[in-house]
Amino acid sequence: MLLKVKSLNLSAGKPIAIINYKTALKLNIHASERVRIKKINKKKRAEFHEIIAITDIAKRLLHENDISVSSEVFEGLGLKDGEIVQVEPALRPLSINFILKKLNGGTLNYTEIFTIISDIVNNALTEAEISYFISGMYIHGMTYNETISLIRAMIKTGRRLKINGSVVDKHSIGGIPGNRTTPIVVSICAAAGLTIPKTSSRAITSAAGTADVIETLAKVDFSIEEIKKIVKETNACLVWGGSLGLAPADDKIIQVERILGLDPEAQLIASILAKKISVGASHVLLDIPFGKEAKVSREKGADLAKKFHDLAKIFGIRLKAVLTNGEQPIGKGIGPVLEMRDVLAVLIRDKKRPLDLEIKSLVLAGEILELVGKAKKGQGKRLAAYILNSGQALKKFRQIIEAQGGSLKDLDKKLALAKYKRVIKAEKRGIIKEINNRKINSIARAAGCPINKSAGLFLHKKVGDFVKKNDSLVTIFAETKEKLNYAYKLFKRDGAFKISEIE
Amino acid sequence: MLLKVKSLNLSAGKPIAIINYKTALKLNIHASERVRIKKINKKKRAEFHEIIAITDIAKRLLHENDISVSSEVFEGLGLKDGEIVQVEPALRPLSINFILKKLNGGTLNYTEIFTIISDIVNNALTEAEISYFISGMYIHGMTYNETISLIRAMIKTGRRLKINGSVVDKHSIGGIPGNRTTPIVVSICAAAGLTIPKTSSRAITSAAGTADVIETLAKVDFSIEEIKKIVKETNACLVWGGSLGLAPADDKIIQVERILGLDPEAQLIASILAKKISVGASHVLLDIPFGKEAKVSREKGADLAKKFHDLAKIFGIRLKAVLTNGEQPIGKGIGPVLEMRDVLAVLIRDKKRPLDLEIKSLVLAGEILELVGKAKKGQGKRLAAYILNSGQALKKFRQIIEAQGGSLKDLDKKLALAKYKRVIKAEKRGIIKEINNRKINSIARAAGCPINKSAGLFLHKKVGDFVKKNDSLVTIFAETKEKLNYAYKLFKRDGAFKISEIE
Repeated sequence: MLLKVKSLNLSAGKPIAIINYKTALKLNIHASERVRIKKINKKKRAEFHEIIAITDIAKRLLHENDISVSSEVFEGLGLKDGEIVQVEPALRPLSINFILKKLNGGTLNYTEIFTIISDIVNNALTEAEISYFISGMYIHGMTYNETISLIRAMIKTGRRLKINGSVVDKHSIGGIPGNRTTPIVVSICAAAGLTIPKTSSRAITSAAGTADVIETLAKVDFSIEEIKKIVKETNACLVWGGSLGLAPADDKIIQVERILGLDPEAQLIASILAKKISVGASHVLLDIPFGKEAKVSREKGADLAKKFHDLAKIFGIRLKAVLTNGEQPIGKGIGPVLEMRDVLAVLIRDKKRPLDLEIKSLVLAGEILELVGKAKKGQGKRLAAYILNSGQALKKFRQIIEAQGGSLKDLDKKLALAKYKRVIKAEKRGIIKEINNRKINSIARAAGCPINKSAGLFLHKKVGDFVKKNDSLVTIFAETKEKLNYAYKLFKRDGAFKISEIE
Repeated sequence: MLLKVKSLNLSAGKPIAIINYKTALKLNIHASERVRIKKINKKKRAEFHEIIAITDIAKRLLHENDISVSSEVFEGLGLKDGEIVQVEPALRPLSINFILKKLNGGTLNYTEIFTIISDIVNNALTEAEISYFISGMYIHGMTYNETISLIRAMIKTGRRLKINGSVVDKHSIGGIPGNRTTPIVVSICAAAGLTIPKTSSRAITSAAGTADVIETLAKVDFSIEEIKKIVKETNACLVWGGSLGLAPADDKIIQVERILGLDPEAQLIASILAKKISVGASHVLLDIPFGKEAKVSREKGADLAKKFHDLAKIFGIRLKAVLTNGEQPIGKGIGPVLEMRDVLAVLIRDKKRPLDLEIKSLVLAGEILELVGKAKKGQGKRLAAYILNSGQALKKFRQIIEAQGGSLKDLDKKLALAKYKRVIKAEKRGIIKEINNRKINSIARAAGCPINKSAGLFLHKKVGDFVKKNDSLVTIFAETKEKLNYAYKLFKRDGAFKISEIE
């Protein structure tokens, strides 16, 4: 059917077309099914000749002969308003059959999984279709071979960072506020001569991601070519991985999983390993925080560690998983600026530096040094401590920040805290028994994290500390009074701290 | 956050809001999550004070302070372009927890199922969320009590047709082209004095629904009040159920099921019974066509019949399920006009009337007459045949059509066939062994059904008939040459007829 294009003047993040309901009847298309839109006027050069779009049906206000398209279609086909295009129902993607097979409890082979993953990357599957796939993975699980296929398919459908020689990477499965070991570990390892091109995420549901924290001092959004240059210069980088197209299927699957908060194990493992393989890692250190308020229990963490290790081996990666205590936040600051202050305090050997963050960073860096053979077994942590104490780690960190267009100058200004603050005091004397990760996270977000980089929480006390009545527990920082009040109310309501009275 | 409204001038079938990605970051909203939009200017009266909308994120082209909304939001809140509204993240619907519970294999109680169904009806759940619910029902099944809760919730969230006294209904689980028994059965039963307010669907994936067929002679789209008037006058109606709001959750669930072609049994049963209860049926006759090319096998059909019977009883409905032969199409015509011709041929006792359609209609009408006690056991079909033969059924049919604003005049014009036609002939002599329902359906749709009411297929031969080479098998009717050729090619490619040679 020939229809006249009207631009929606809207970038919806995916190709969308809106047609009149009468036109939909003629095409035999229902809402959220796909149409194939073909360019007829070939004079103007375009990126694509045809694009598959998801259909919205308009009951009124759109003429029968018109089709309204999002800018992904408009620009992709190089269209002009009023241009005539050919529109027809798009065939149902082949991957639908394989999704149904998985939902029915079947086992998928590589080709089938590749077809699904590649349709996800190409926007050919809707969220409803992806959620059927996730349901199948979640309920029936994935075999060992299916997980391998999933990793292969995720890598194959993405870009890769190719760096010669042995490449080191680290990753945390997450969930612990303030767990900002990455900048310290990367600086120590790079100072020891290892190549460690670290890509990180921004916060999705947490108060800060490593990318948000680094951004307080330097740029983090680079092209693959620019990253190669930074790594050549410094042995390392501390950049945002989001726009690099490394295993991009992962990001879309996670978006649909978040609806129900699902995290099928196969997908968790595939997601992490695919990203590590895409950056060319030969050695990977995995931080698995466990505990009541962490993502996994100790038993589940140990099981996960084994699966990661075995699967990484298939792809020629030496992976070491370390189970760490995830019972409470790490460090004193929660929020981009507050966490960078903690990181710098450790690197410059400040007297008030958070020792839990320092020790955890040294443990992780030590494991990496041993994994690659830079230190003998049992000697890694000592070497890491030497590099940190001697100032080599700070020097390396400065070098990376400068290579990323930043500096360690004007820190007072760059790391200034938000102007509204409120101190929360202990209501009774006792010992801090629990600091709830999830609640701390919500309160920091209520205060404005991660958008307001100078907002967040400063923890005066940690689990095991003794407090007197009216001792400061937490200071909340926010950029507006409203956010400060909101975070304060949330703290009062949820009670993120538990204090046990002394008998 | 306060944002300025820009109308999208688009009715998307659901409330949609588009915001700039920077605004989305500030609100901490991701694409396809929900925002609550509140009206601030209360001067103008509006249907709602606040509406929950699904969010699209625009990367460009939309100003940070603007929000672009679909007409469901614009009109629902009575907005003007440029008006300021309050926008905030909407809470995650409570039903998400129950969907997760079902996906984890749990059993839901009535309140939990009601919450899900009512969120579906209120547009509070996205298709991805509904598909997680369907996955749970599909993989884990539903208990007897869950199915009852599902039926109750579907009725409770919809409107009801309240008619005094005992009310009869019939239903077919579908899948057989030309199976147009409804107008004949309804006319016979209403002529016998029964109250039978029949609501039917339009074709979704078939060549014609009963509503499409009746529409060749009368209107089918009425309000509940109008339907009551028609039923008072004639004991019956033959209307479209789609816009009445009877068990509306059903329509949305079916839309998401269609993506993978799923049809969880509990949902199939609940869907049918909820509609029947909503029209106030006390007696229901259910047609379950079985066979290789039907929806169910004989065994599955018998099992389904028992489940329907038992569940209907819970709701005080006397239900009889009849297993019928679904191996081939019923009657000679496929398509709205062609099927109405078959119906009229039976009603006016035309010599060339399709006897399979007549016999099946008499069997079903006879079962209903026995079910309500109008005929003794074993005598229903005879009474039905008497009503049909005596012309009382035709008289009743005319009365219903007239009450629905139509007439049986000018039939030559109203039931004229499409002007392009092509006869397909037998390529060899033999016995017709198979006529494939699914293929016949696709070919009729290719010819233009159900939109082009005068298009479709006329079957000259049925299974068991003897044919000589070059005997006419099928005539295809279409309104354009293109559609005729398309349907013809499909017939040639798919071979909907199988002829076995005579030894």
